[in-house]
Amino acid sequence: MPTLASAITTPDPAALEEWLDDTPDRGERERQLRDLAAPDRARLVAGLDPELADRLLAVIEPRTAANLLTSASPVAAAGLLASLDSDIAADILREIPEPTSASLIGALPPARALVLNGLLSWPPESAAAHMVPEALVISQGQDVESALTQLRLQTAAAPVDSLVAAYVYVVDDERRLLGVVSLQQLVLAAPGTQVADLTETDIIAVEADTDDEVAARTLTDNRLAALPVVDKDRRLLGVITADRAADIVEDENTEDAERQGGSEPLEVPYLQASPVRLWRKRVVWLLVLFIAEAYTGTVLRYFEDELDAVVSLAFFIPLLVGTGGNTGTQITTTLVRAASTGEVRLRDLGKVLPKELSAAVMISATMAAVGLLRAWTLGVGWPVMITVAVSLAAIVLWSAFVASILPLLLTKTKIDPAVVSAPMIATIVDGTGLLIYFMIAKSIIPELSH
Amino acid sequence: MPTLASAITTPDPAALEEWLDDTPDRGERERQLRDLAAPDRARLVAGLDPELADRLLAVIEPRTAANLLTSASPVAAAGLLASLDSDIAADILREIPEPTSASLIGALPPARALVLNGLLSWPPESAAAHMVPEALVISQGQDVESALTQLRLQTAAAPVDSLVAAYVYVVDDERRLLGVVSLQQLVLAAPGTQVADLTETDIIAVEADTDDEVAARTLTDNRLAALPVVDKDRRLLGVITADRAADIVEDENTEDAERQGGSEPLEVPYLQASPVRLWRKRVVWLLVLFIAEAYTGTVLRYFEDELDAVVSLAFFIPLLVGTGGNTGTQITTTLVRAASTGEVRLRDLGKVLPKELSAAVMISATMAAVGLLRAWTLGVGWPVMITVAVSLAAIVLWSAFVASILPLLLTKTKIDPAVVSAPMIATIVDGTGLLIYFMIAKSIIPELSH
Repeated sequence: MPTLASAITTPDPAALEEWLDDTPDRGERERQLRDLAAPDRARLVAGLDPELADRLLAVIEPRTAANLLTSASPVAAAGLLASLDSDIAADILREIPEPTSASLIGALPPARALVLNGLLSWPPESAAAHMVPEALVISQGQDVESALTQLRLQTAAAPVDSLVAAYVYVVDDERRLLGVVSLQQLVLAAPGTQVADLTETDIIAVEADTDDEVAARTLTDNRLAALPVVDKDRRLLGVITADRAADIVEDENTEDAERQGGSEPLEVPYLQASPVRLWRKRVVWLLVLFIAEAYTGTVLRYFEDELDAVVSLAFFIPLLVGTGGNTGTQITTTLVRAASTGEVRLRDLGKVLPKELSAAVMISATMAAVGLLRAWTLGVGWPVMITVAVSLAAIVLWSAFVASILPLLLTKTKIDPAVVSAPMIATIVDGTGLLIYFMIAKSIIPELSH
Repeated sequence: MPTLASAITTPDPAALEEWLDDTPDRGERERQLRDLAAPDRARLVAGLDPELADRLLAVIEPRTAANLLTSASPVAAAGLLASLDSDIAADILREIPEPTSASLIGALPPARALVLNGLLSWPPESAAAHMVPEALVISQGQDVESALTQLRLQTAAAPVDSLVAAYVYVVDDERRLLGVVSLQQLVLAAPGTQVADLTETDIIAVEADTDDEVAARTLTDNRLAALPVVDKDRRLLGVITADRAADIVEDENTEDAERQGGSEPLEVPYLQASPVRLWRKRVVWLLVLFIAEAYTGTVLRYFEDELDAVVSLAFFIPLLVGTGGNTGTQITTTLVRAASTGEVRLRDLGKVLPKELSAAVMISATMAAVGLLRAWTLGVGWPVMITVAVSLAAIVLWSAFVASILPLLLTKTKIDPAVVSAPMIATIVDGTGLLIYFMIAKSIIPELSH
């Protein structure tokens, strides 16, 4: 297997292409690019022709591509940018700071610069920011031969990606979307067929300012190769392709995972995040949770006399709050995921709650049984044993109730349900779980009931 | 916006198609299908023509599609199955129990039955199980006109999906993969062009028994519309399409999320999971974690005298172990996600560990400061205040160390790093964190140092 370093030092430019084919794993490519010394990096960029740049820069992190481009001269970098799909070029330009990116765009052919400036002017989280404006369009009322001739003229100057070319859109004189026909149907139709006979006029499209995640899910939910983006008057602005939708969904999944772990999304690839960024993204939630958790100290001090009288009650504190947190975490992660894929919404609460509470009853019975056993092995006596078992059952039920409702409530708000993280649910259950524990202890243990 | 129930009762079959176009959200479609009464469900299936079935059954959960099909007569169901893309039909058939599915396949045209039985014979987690065998192929050494004629003949009988048709594969007499050309290039090339001049001979392909997740990531990592699946002799067996790859990645993401929440993957859509299944998938990990957590009771009993002497030490137990668990969870979720997308591997430990420990030093300083403040507000005196602050710093560092190493170690094994869940890391840190706390207490608090 050739390494990137060896491919660069080979005089044959095909070596780099071979390296790309033999290194289909994106992580591995990033690793080798990252480990490149500065002179090798410059040599890599210098050796790129437009076709190779198109292949390489499209399949690495936009940040890595931006680093590569800025290590070349502005003219050379502009030359490489010119060959990329517009959506990918825009993605890379977003990672390049202002004066440099503007000068790069300035060095592009005017038509191309116009397209890229157009893309960059959309809010980064809108559907339009991710589109390829060069969708294939034909006018209505022709047969397939003349349609193909029209397409040949359109793509002669700039070939488009296979996903962009999967569908051909039928538009009117003002570029309003009338219908869609797959390229395959156009090509494979019997000669003389009218385009109108092949055209599907019910089209799923999104407006330019649609949230990019909604657009991406719309594409994947409907198994499309590309999704048209239109303006308020239904004029075709471009298409989002399936590969881009996969990127958007993956980024959303990464953000959800980070939120679920109780931190703010890093917003950059992990290995490119500095320790200060890690600290900044994590410490906010740690402090919020610390303050919330500090309440457990107040609860415990309130029950100081009980703890003093029956010190063995303290043995079970981590076990009880831990089990409560675990039960709650299991439920929230499942529900947050189901909410994120659009499977559950607040209106499903009537189905979710009975299901979760039924499961929780079974789980609480199981945990009460093993809790009894564990208390017995610690030799704490019957009153504490029963307190532990009953508390476990009660905490599991309480935790299930909170964990079932919280993420679903957030689906109705602007807040991402993924903020209901494992640490958050554990924190909520910790304080309330201790309250439950000591209240049960006071009503069961003779020394404490006064 | 039309509802499914109203679309079914409308005599016009176009009403259902309109419903599909106006309900692009998969979750909403599932919800309306689920709420359908049995007679309406039967009426829906009866009203499906092959084209509509192709549209509807491809964009709903395979389980839901299986339920719809089994509510029709076997002959009608086979008729609907015949019109679906092979990979989707196989996916639905996997959800139908044995005797019924075999009789459905038996009612299909023999060629189609052969294809589907072929797909079903692959292990469900192999690349080949997810492929569409009807890839477009042409023979070498011809010009684009004759290639297109060959393709027209191939697709006349069975049209293929746009994603399948994005690429045309050049094969030899034994169907060995020689190269690939995009349909777009074939169509838009100047007349008389030789196919060989357009063919790319370096092709990324996967073998039939490749893990489906690896195949899906290979497709998305390289921004492909479809990925060829070959046998040991590099004969083309079929292609995996981008929409299917997105399904596989999403299923993997759901499994990872469930594992990260400390349960076994549900393996069915959440709303289709029974309470008993929820209990079964969750209780295993709860018991494992309970047993591991039970160790905290042993630690606390061991320090019973210290707790008795300075009962205020107990106030901080949930806060300390909670913060340790939170810090660890933040790190593991980030690393598990980065491992899942292929961004980090064990060999990156040399980069990950210094980064995480640097961040942890900043976090431990922050948490020690707020810990000191919190202990002061509880009025526990200087020795306990200092114990709490020092313990917080130590536990944060310890937790960061464990959480950085554990997921990366698992990338070298067959175990999914996602099993390093929030509950697991919390459990590991709970017991060890208490040990750290009491050891620090004994060395700092005068009453305990004997």
